Amino acid sequence: MSILHYLFPILEWSKSYSLKSFQSDTMAGLTLASLSIPQSIGYANLAKLDPQYGLYTSAVPPLLYAVMGTSRDIAIGPVAIVSLLLSSMVQKIADPAIDPALYRKMIFTVTFLTGVFQFAFGLFRLGFLVDFLSHAAITGFMGGAAIVIGLQQLKGLLGLSHFTSNTDVVSVTKAVWVSVHEPWHPENFFIGCSFFLFILGMRFIGRKNKLFWVSAIAPVLSVVLSTLIVYMTRADNRGVKIIQNVDAGINSSSVKQINLNGPYVIECAKIALIFAVIALTEAIAVGRSFSVINGYKLDGNKEMIAMGFMNVGGSLSSCYVATGSFSRTAVNFTAGCKTAVSNVVMAAIVMVTLEVLTKLLFYTPVSILASIILSALPGLINVHEVCILWKVDKMDFLTCMGSFLGVLFGSVEIGLSVAIGVSFFKVIVHSIRPQVVILGRVQGTNIFCNFKQYPMVCQTPVVLTTRIDTSFLCFINANFIRERITELVTQNLQEIRSVVLDMSNVVDIDTAGLAALEELNGELVSRGIQMAIANPGWKFVHKMKLARLVDRIGESWIFLTVGEAVEACLGNKKGVDLDC
Amino acid sequence: MSILHYLFPILEWSKSYSLKSFQSDTMAGLTLASLSIPQSIGYANLAKLDPQYGLYTSAVPPLLYAVMGTSRDIAIGPVAIVSLLLSSMVQKIADPAIDPALYRKMIFTVTFLTGVFQFAFGLFRLGFLVDFLSHAAITGFMGGAAIVIGLQQLKGLLGLSHFTSNTDVVSVTKAVWVSVHEPWHPENFFIGCSFFLFILGMRFIGRKNKLFWVSAIAPVLSVVLSTLIVYMTRADNRGVKIIQNVDAGINSSSVKQINLNGPYVIECAKIALIFAVIALTEAIAVGRSFSVINGYKLDGNKEMIAMGFMNVGGSLSSCYVATGSFSRTAVNFTAGCKTAVSNVVMAAIVMVTLEVLTKLLFYTPVSILASIILSALPGLINVHEVCILWKVDKMDFLTCMGSFLGVLFGSVEIGLSVAIGVSFFKVIVHSIRPQVVILGRVQGTNIFCNFKQYPMVCQTPVVLTTRIDTSFLCFINANFIRERITELVTQNLQEIRSVVLDMSNVVDIDTAGLAALEELNGELVSRGIQMAIANPGWKFVHKMKLARLVDRIGESWIFLTVGEAVEACLGNKKGVDLDC
Repeated sequence: MSILHYLFPILEWSKSYSLKSFQSDTMAGLTLASLSIPQSIGYANLAKLDPQYGLYTSAVPPLLYAVMGTSRDIAIGPVAIVSLLLSSMVQKIADPAIDPALYRKMIFTVTFLTGVFQFAFGLFRLGFLVDFLSHAAITGFMGGAAIVIGLQQLKGLLGLSHFTSNTDVVSVTKAVWVSVHEPWHPENFFIGCSFFLFILGMRFIGRKNKLFWVSAIAPVLSVVLSTLIVYMTRADNRGVKIIQNVDAGINSSSVKQINLNGPYVIECAKIALIFAVIALTEAIAVGRSFSVINGYKLDGNKEMIAMGFMNVGGSLSSCYVATGSFSRTAVNFTAGCKTAVSNVVMAAIVMVTLEVLTKLLFYTPVSILASIILSALPGLINVHEVCILWKVDKMDFLTCMGSFLGVLFGSVEIGLSVAIGVSFFKVIVHSIRPQVVILGRVQGTNIFCNFKQYPMVCQTPVVLTTRIDTSFLCFINANFIRERITELVTQNLQEIRSVVLDMSNVVDIDTAGLAALEELNGELVSRGIQMAIANPGWKFVHKMKLARLVDRIGESWIFLTVGEAVEACLGNKKGVDLDC
Repeated sequence: MSILHYLFPILEWSKSYSLKSFQSDTMAGLTLASLSIPQSIGYANLAKLDPQYGLYTSAVPPLLYAVMGTSRDIAIGPVAIVSLLLSSMVQKIADPAIDPALYRKMIFTVTFLTGVFQFAFGLFRLGFLVDFLSHAAITGFMGGAAIVIGLQQLKGLLGLSHFTSNTDVVSVTKAVWVSVHEPWHPENFFIGCSFFLFILGMRFIGRKNKLFWVSAIAPVLSVVLSTLIVYMTRADNRGVKIIQNVDAGINSSSVKQINLNGPYVIECAKIALIFAVIALTEAIAVGRSFSVINGYKLDGNKEMIAMGFMNVGGSLSSCYVATGSFSRTAVNFTAGCKTAVSNVVMAAIVMVTLEVLTKLLFYTPVSILASIILSALPGLINVHEVCILWKVDKMDFLTCMGSFLGVLFGSVEIGLSVAIGVSFFKVIVHSIRPQVVILGRVQGTNIFCNFKQYPMVCQTPVVLTTRIDTSFLCFINANFIRERITELVTQNLQEIRSVVLDMSNVVDIDTAGLAALEELNGELVSRGIQMAIANPGWKFVHKMKLARLVDRIGESWIFLTVGEAVEACLGNKKGVDLDC
């Protein structure tokens, strides 16, 4: 029972679910649907799938999430970056232009495996995997992806027939350059641009007059208008590309299309792993940011399990990878949603659309989808954030730029690997060169602080008090620390009788660290200097004992606090006032 | 002038060089030569080069090191592991059996590049690169290499003609198994084994009676004896493999043999990079351990420059990669060397040997070289060290075993990469899950210590005092820490009014860390809990200011010490005695 309650939070909150919150959820759901239907079609196009698959993905996963998810605000469905990624990666296995059936199979297989991975992450509490994509990396990655997606839209916007399958700037611009020299139909461009401006205009008005719904319904409105225009003017005969047939009917089963013993399964697994992380990172980032606003706890591992189930379920009902969309979540939130019921409402509307309204999409111009996608992109490019990164942390800025340029000029994979590489490099570099700070006593107290940081403190005579600022005294920094301390001893103007090492920061140590300490002790002893250790952690003490280091230094020279250690050292030398 | 003095330490110590120390250096040099001449020939064999190349490598590099090196005890020359590595790696480019000339070219090119890399490391003060091969890794690596080398000796010992070029246990045993079924000459085996036992016996006697020279001269003695025996019994006619021709004369120039624009130069550079690190690691490990014993300072970067010059010079005079040999250094030290002059003496004797005595090596049986190499191996296998690793640090044991098994069953490269991989994995893992300890006040003082570690301390009421035990609050641990603290707050039985974060351990923070702190502050505020930060480092404060985090938390809630922070927090609530 408790497991059920854990797996299906809906059992919890449904009890206290009121009519009032249902009303606001319905409103939010309606707004959400009006935004997500056109977007879904657009993103399906981005994923090189037929329009209905986008709608499918907005139908089943939200329902599954509603019963299992812990976030109240998140809006589930297809998102731009995942759609682009999916097509750019899967088309290396199967070309959608040549064999769409195989391509779909691969998509569903990847989706299924993504779900499995996500579920596994949640089950084994591997939440930290999501942190591996640092916020800085995501920022750069999203920015780059947004630009790449935007460039991809030129195809629809210019109504080009053949286009590059690469995503990097260079080859896309080349492809555009080539194809604009071929005969092309400016009508597409005209429709796309005008409605793009229309959507932006609506958004501007909405922002200005605090009427968020104005911007929310802009996309669906532009779809309706453009479709009507094309239908009445029969512009499709004049070369305006239209969506044409959209299969009617709600999600059909795709169980048979998932093949886990095919030749490509390894490839699919690799792709799925990347997606599992990316989709979760985005979803959890979105969910968390809104949970903080509304002040409720978001359980990362539970989220992962929910997302996993959601995508597995989706893959069995011809959906592709779904996750939390930031833009739509914001709309959902602004529309005043209370619970995940808003997702249910949206899903219901999408299903109705699938059943009834698909025929009306026949004359919808393709370029309008491009304009809708384009209008969603500015939200992904966060220049302000980049400025902050530059201002606050240059390394993070580097990470951000690395992934940005990687995506832009290389590929999505390159961007990601650059980002992760730089991030981990940062962590390693940081532990290679730890600080060794000199401590001084705060007058008349037993408090010792960093001498550089607080110049009012004064150093004790004949005793050099240092703090080692690394949590792991290990092979990459042990020798550096040893040399640094011997340096400090030699550089010191007054003669040193004893050295106190404040180990309060050193949580753990490895054999190299122990060896370095032993060597240091040897060097100091050979100079007639006593070494004392203050406030070592239990792991540290344990290992020191195991390595017999305690015996060498002497049990009596290991102290609870720096104060005590210094007193003991000063005890060696007579006639020193303990105040300083 | 000072640069000259920096580059050539000989200018320093030669001034104060006395006749007395020259005598002891001469003695040490003689002993060293008696050991290094047979070893050099054996190692040349291991490197799949003609015997004289081993002697060359014991002639020029020691001279170069003597004028540039800072270590007084180290014995320079060819060493077993480098020799094996060199052959096992370079023979992938050029097969010594098919095209020995090309193979030699490659060897010299690699040696040259190794020297260049080492010099560069020293110049750019990249001393820390040497630390990347942790002691644990080296231990396992050497052990594995020793066994592999031992197995390689079966070729010479059994007098086999064709043998595998792979180094892993499996293929070597297979090769032996195959070839023992062919006709082979037990005489080789007999000679080899008997002299192997002879050397071990001499060593035993030497150890027992503290006559180290007995074990020192054993190898050269066995060479002489075995040569005489073979010469007199003409055993070479009965299938005993002999060295035969050894080119007379000292090192010839090999400048023309170094080709840096050939097709293999990239390959050579890769190999050279590995060697630069391995050779330096061994040399510096050796040098440092003896410098500690004799209590003088070893300058890592200067050592690297010296080694670099040494190997560049060596490569131009038909030597292969030379470094400090542990076994010979020990002998040199025991023989009472005072300065690097002992290396000069040794080099001189080796040169004389090259000029005069090479003819006498004609009848030296090959199997004797095998036995000499075998007798040098036990020193490389350090079981005791491995036991300590297991006892003290399981992760280091894993590193050790990884490199050991990697070398044994894979290849030397695999062993190395496993070792380095595990080592860095260790560092990363360590920063993923930092400790967040609860602090308590030491009765009647302002000292706060780990509650778990010192049960006598008592926690302050309504104030939760925690210390974050990581030096880098960054993307991989920020969320974990945030969640941990909120957990502590919720789990805490008594109601919490304020949380004090002791940041004394946090040296640096990145944007993810700042975001997490901000989020944490938000969560706490939403629960009506005040957050206070104690003793933040300057970098940390700086970034907090840049990210406007200080304003959000409030300047007045950042304190110098935990004590002050707690007082301030308790100030919120009346009627609490500050003693506890």
